Amino acid sequence: MSGDSQSTTIADAARRETDAPSSKLAKFDARAPLTLDSGATLGPWQIAYETYGTLNAGKTNAVLVCHALTGDQYVASTNPLTGKPGWWSKMVGPGRPIDTDVYFVICANVLGGCLGTTGPATTNPETGMPYGLSLPVITIRDMVRAQARLVDHLGIDTLFAVAGGSMGGMQVLQWAASFPERVFSAIPIATSARHSSQNIAFHEVGRQAIMADPNWAGGAYLTKDLRPTKGLAVARMAAHITYMSDESLHQKFGRNLQDREDLTFGFDADFQIESYLRHQGMTFVDRFDANSYLYVTRAMDYFDLAGEFDGQLARAFQGTKTRFCIMSFTSDWLFPTAESRAVVKALNAAAANVSFVEVDSDRGHDAFLLDVPEMFRTVRGFVTGAAKARGIPAPGGRD
Amino acid sequence: MSGDSQSTTIADAARRETDAPSSKLAKFDARAPLTLDSGATLGPWQIAYETYGTLNAGKTNAVLVCHALTGDQYVASTNPLTGKPGWWSKMVGPGRPIDTDVYFVICANVLGGCLGTTGPATTNPETGMPYGLSLPVITIRDMVRAQARLVDHLGIDTLFAVAGGSMGGMQVLQWAASFPERVFSAIPIATSARHSSQNIAFHEVGRQAIMADPNWAGGAYLTKDLRPTKGLAVARMAAHITYMSDESLHQKFGRNLQDREDLTFGFDADFQIESYLRHQGMTFVDRFDANSYLYVTRAMDYFDLAGEFDGQLARAFQGTKTRFCIMSFTSDWLFPTAESRAVVKALNAAAANVSFVEVDSDRGHDAFLLDVPEMFRTVRGFVTGAAKARGIPAPGGRD
Repeated sequence: MSGDSQSTTIADAARRETDAPSSKLAKFDARAPLTLDSGATLGPWQIAYETYGTLNAGKTNAVLVCHALTGDQYVASTNPLTGKPGWWSKMVGPGRPIDTDVYFVICANVLGGCLGTTGPATTNPETGMPYGLSLPVITIRDMVRAQARLVDHLGIDTLFAVAGGSMGGMQVLQWAASFPERVFSAIPIATSARHSSQNIAFHEVGRQAIMADPNWAGGAYLTKDLRPTKGLAVARMAAHITYMSDESLHQKFGRNLQDREDLTFGFDADFQIESYLRHQGMTFVDRFDANSYLYVTRAMDYFDLAGEFDGQLARAFQGTKTRFCIMSFTSDWLFPTAESRAVVKALNAAAANVSFVEVDSDRGHDAFLLDVPEMFRTVRGFVTGAAKARGIPAPGGRD
Repeated sequence: MSGDSQSTTIADAARRETDAPSSKLAKFDARAPLTLDSGATLGPWQIAYETYGTLNAGKTNAVLVCHALTGDQYVASTNPLTGKPGWWSKMVGPGRPIDTDVYFVICANVLGGCLGTTGPATTNPETGMPYGLSLPVITIRDMVRAQARLVDHLGIDTLFAVAGGSMGGMQVLQWAASFPERVFSAIPIATSARHSSQNIAFHEVGRQAIMADPNWAGGAYLTKDLRPTKGLAVARMAAHITYMSDESLHQKFGRNLQDREDLTFGFDADFQIESYLRHQGMTFVDRFDANSYLYVTRAMDYFDLAGEFDGQLARAFQGTKTRFCIMSFTSDWLFPTAESRAVVKALNAAAANVSFVEVDSDRGHDAFLLDVPEMFRTVRGFVTGAAKARGIPAPGGRD
């Protein structure tokens, strides 16, 4: 399905560039380790990031954007590995709802990722070999801790906004709970305060698909010049279905056949949806590391924000002054509106400043990445209002 | 995940018993081949089946039950391979809604299956080796053709009822369309007249998981003493999630941990849902053949009843005298109620005799296999009414 699993992939090239990536790097040596939720410490470590726009003199206009499971730091600029535009370039950029003519936008690759930030493909300084499964398991809070260190490194005290969808939204909620005084406004989209049983189940299928691939080699494939591309592709295919809605699959593909007039009575990709999914799987393995997939899915599974607060989500936000803009999508069955409502309920119980919008869309969970005008209008309006409250000047000619 | 993939499984034992299974067998020699939708002919071929109750003198009380994707002919008796009770023993049996004190119930393993009926593990008489992928692709209509031959073989002209859920329901609809004069009543449950894009997608993930397993060996694993157990287990895990609802997973497992107090910060099955899914995968490979999984999922994907009738589903039922009882479940997202409504709409357009019930259940697609009283009451009422119309005496003391 995925070609020669031992061939060099784009992700390999990225790994080779770890010490000289195209992204900016913040490096922390062993004297500045990161203490993780597991109790382990990680150091030296590094975080790769991109920035857009200019930090103002008062350092009041910084926006942190957090990426989703397979996202990256290239939120508003071309991903050098894939050549594709930034994954949220309709949301972030000059004149966009998060306007880089006004705000200084930071986006970092998550801890455990594979695009420059320390992850399982990083060389373990103690062994001189890639960490593989010897990297401690990472949590969403660990990702946020690493980002906070980056924000410190940039000399920024308070973020004007933290925004993100899906796993990015989990990080937004964690930021608001862990560092309430550092988050002026928060925009968690299509997310949840805890990963559901069904979502853990889908992640477990993906992990088992990777681990079932003999080329995974117990996680040590990099040292053996192997790549579990088939298992990773299956994991991606399964996940990809959950990002779309039944309705959008029906509209986009239905039962249409792929480049043929009739059924072939075989196991080739007769249907367009099969061909599409196979393509999703095949291209994914070129840009993502299999062990990172294990680590980042695990971080999402472990996420249960109320768990830090005796099971009471409202306590996570007690006394918060952060302004929240919560958004969900009607056809998102991976992070359904009920999950957002639970967050809104907790925020209301904490007497927080919260707006909630359920956006009508038939595009499923992926809607947060797509061209959904109501989402853009909502974010633009919320950000503009928050900027006024924060005393950040509006861009010339726009409001 | 699934132990030694080269070990002998229960399914292997079943294959060895092909010539002397515990089930009844109807064998058809090469002079009585089955002509398939693909254009291929299959012969010799055989069909394994179970019966319950007694055929009356007028042969008016025969009920055919059709099984789902991974079901079998043991609808109301212990499956000799697993030792588990019949898969629909709450629906079919003495005093049950399909009452074996009154009706003669037939249930056959589907064509392409792995419990005695000709399938990919059957020896190809031309080569002396298992068919593997040289077996022609099978359709739902082919399964029904094979069942019709069995019904002929049993000397039965008209079936009092044909009943089944999921893929079993597809066969019920096909029976009603292909042999309307032979079906007095039809009970398709939790099914659809065509497999949706999303459902094809999930099947494709399962097939790719199997094919990604090097032990699948291009489908020739039986001749090489290999078994693609890891790939098949992943396929089952992915499918199993789709059989349950988000709500039932939440109620049954939530985020509960498995035999531990705290997260382990590793990749073992920390959560009960992970442990449960792994168990589902591991036990499945003992009772099911990987190539059969490919063939039977393909048959479902290919199912599009309207396709035989210029895309007009109503024409599939034009002039039918069959009485229909259509049932769906509120939380079934694999075969949602909208699919059943489309069938009801077509039946109404054909002026057919149709009852439709959407049963309130939070158990997802699996509800049709579970203890759902409203389903049993509905089937009992429908069957009793149809029996009166057919002139079949009610059992003593019951109505």
